[in-house]
Amino acid sequence: MANNSLNTGIKLVKNVGSFNIGAGSLDELPAHVDARRASAIKQGGEGKVVFLIDEFFAGQPATLSRLGAKEQDRIEFVSTRDEPKTEAIDLRVAGLVKAGFSKPATIVGLGGGITLDTAKAVSNLLTNGGLAEQYQGWDLVKVPGIHKIGVPTISGTGAEATRTCVMTNTRNGLKLGMNSDHTVFNHLVLDPELTATVPRSQYFYTGMDAYIHCVESMAGSYRNAIGDAYSRETISLCRQAFLAEDMMSPESRERLMVASYLGGCAIATSYVGLIHPFSAGLSVVLGLHHCVANCIVMRAMDEFYPKACEEFWTMVERQRVTIPENICSGLTDEQYSALYDATVIHQKPLTNALGSNYLEVLTFDKVTSLFLKM
Amino acid sequence: MANNSLNTGIKLVKNVGSFNIGAGSLDELPAHVDARRASAIKQGGEGKVVFLIDEFFAGQPATLSRLGAKEQDRIEFVSTRDEPKTEAIDLRVAGLVKAGFSKPATIVGLGGGITLDTAKAVSNLLTNGGLAEQYQGWDLVKVPGIHKIGVPTISGTGAEATRTCVMTNTRNGLKLGMNSDHTVFNHLVLDPELTATVPRSQYFYTGMDAYIHCVESMAGSYRNAIGDAYSRETISLCRQAFLAEDMMSPESRERLMVASYLGGCAIATSYVGLIHPFSAGLSVVLGLHHCVANCIVMRAMDEFYPKACEEFWTMVERQRVTIPENICSGLTDEQYSALYDATVIHQKPLTNALGSNYLEVLTFDKVTSLFLKM
Repeated sequence: MANNSLNTGIKLVKNVGSFNIGAGSLDELPAHVDARRASAIKQGGEGKVVFLIDEFFAGQPATLSRLGAKEQDRIEFVSTRDEPKTEAIDLRVAGLVKAGFSKPATIVGLGGGITLDTAKAVSNLLTNGGLAEQYQGWDLVKVPGIHKIGVPTISGTGAEATRTCVMTNTRNGLKLGMNSDHTVFNHLVLDPELTATVPRSQYFYTGMDAYIHCVESMAGSYRNAIGDAYSRETISLCRQAFLAEDMMSPESRERLMVASYLGGCAIATSYVGLIHPFSAGLSVVLGLHHCVANCIVMRAMDEFYPKACEEFWTMVERQRVTIPENICSGLTDEQYSALYDATVIHQKPLTNALGSNYLEVLTFDKVTSLFLKM
Repeated sequence: MANNSLNTGIKLVKNVGSFNIGAGSLDELPAHVDARRASAIKQGGEGKVVFLIDEFFAGQPATLSRLGAKEQDRIEFVSTRDEPKTEAIDLRVAGLVKAGFSKPATIVGLGGGITLDTAKAVSNLLTNGGLAEQYQGWDLVKVPGIHKIGVPTISGTGAEATRTCVMTNTRNGLKLGMNSDHTVFNHLVLDPELTATVPRSQYFYTGMDAYIHCVESMAGSYRNAIGDAYSRETISLCRQAFLAEDMMSPESRERLMVASYLGGCAIATSYVGLIHPFSAGLSVVLGLHHCVANCIVMRAMDEFYPKACEEFWTMVERQRVTIPENICSGLTDEQYSALYDATVIHQKPLTNALGSNYLEVLTFDKVTSLFLKM
């Protein structure tokens, strides 16, 4: 840690229990599921399993047949149109309880950040009771959730490794996760073959979530040696993937899957900077998904992160992807005002990036001019 | 993973459950110990705790008073003169059982690799029964051990993060650990203040264990993306520590503690190369401790690892430490023969480094000439 840096104050790190890794490792999943079934039956349970699966795989029977699901299990497909909302999570939990799945042997979440976060939230609610919004915040989850296995099918968000599951509160619009040691997956299956079918642009936007997070952390003033280590390595792996000729070659996909996992480990021990708060503004006000919003924000970040911006646009060009533009032109005064509010509310990361007087830099006019560049 | 590399075949990685990190984090230990006591008492147990502590701390009451030990607990000091032997482990387990500590609420291991490995072995034996030698090998431990907390007081071996505990079989001389998911610590306290009092040479030799392991992995042909990532970052942190003006500044000690942990994570997903087999030869035949033996081997490795050797000797010079020399001159024919046997037996790492025909390179004369350089 640099002498002039502040400590993050983060003292406790909870790891994912264990993981399978490598091309083809999805074939290890049924053995883990069956071990959970056997253990549940031994304790007098039924050994039924809940599979929460990204809706994309509803049309992929070849993948579905490899999960080890049985007649007695429950398979639910998760829509990825919207990011998780508390009400939708509550409805899903109620549905599972009604269908007799209040104590499954394990919950398998297979999909992107939305599906993984849904699996985490459902797991916590089945054992803790109550409504999702009651657990939005830090360390509010009281007892361990149902055992859960994460199988990411796109790389970048780090949801597979973090201690949170981001949800938007349907009632008040608050976007906040269940930050808890209990939210961490018990087991992961990291199989880079699963990311081969992701659309190129989505693959790029999502992968960049890992890169951008770590760029922000490494430029911040709250630091520690382990967060720096994870961030440095995540950035290195993202470079290997996105500066390669083909970001979707088997090697690049494996590297990006590791980057996503280590980037998730970095999140737990560090803070973001300017990009995530601006991106949150775009999500809250314009409904943009988190990862594409991050990339759009990069259109306006060259004065704050000059080197990372240069590298980012090199990667965009190398991989021939398109970042949406002009998305903030011609909005109403109310919308600009909402964008400002939804950005500057993120005190901790903005302090990390600019110091405690960050509002002196981020005036309303300045923030609006930055959004107009996007 | 490079196109021309082979996969390690390692598919499952078990993580340490959680860890505290940062200067002063030893103060978090009593809360973890007390949580285990409370949980044990709830289940009808006595809530007694076993502390296995490096003998150095017998003379450090200020540290001992911070561990949260109570009257009812058992504190045993672990001698670090010899590396762990199966018979000594068995005797310690029998002593604990006799003293009424067959089911402690947790075992705290505080010390270097010897103490941490002792804690891991004792934990497994208290629940699995039998003798230590019965579990030397891969996945022979049947049920989870006693809950265990590791507190490293020197950085480098990675024992805090690995799934093994190395022991020498007293009967047949076999040096082999209990390789098992059950051997992994449940919790760690990573407090770099604890390494401030380590003698400089010992600090250097032990820290180099992490560097050397990762240099060997990165030069090998069995590779995977996550092992490479951990190894790269471990090497980077070792460089930051050992190329700094003072390897024992608070910043360097924090970095090296993270390097040791990540280096341990690397071990689980990669193989070593030439240095560890030669080092094992020195340990088996001449009784040298593992870490100093590694450094001695570096005297003869320039033709295999030229860049790493150059960097290693730069670090030695920068930190003004002394590496023993001429330790293999004037041995008996029997000893040279024993050194050869104890080196070339390590098939997997030597194949990783030189290919399956490694004996064509490592002839008796060649191996002996290398030992004579040490």
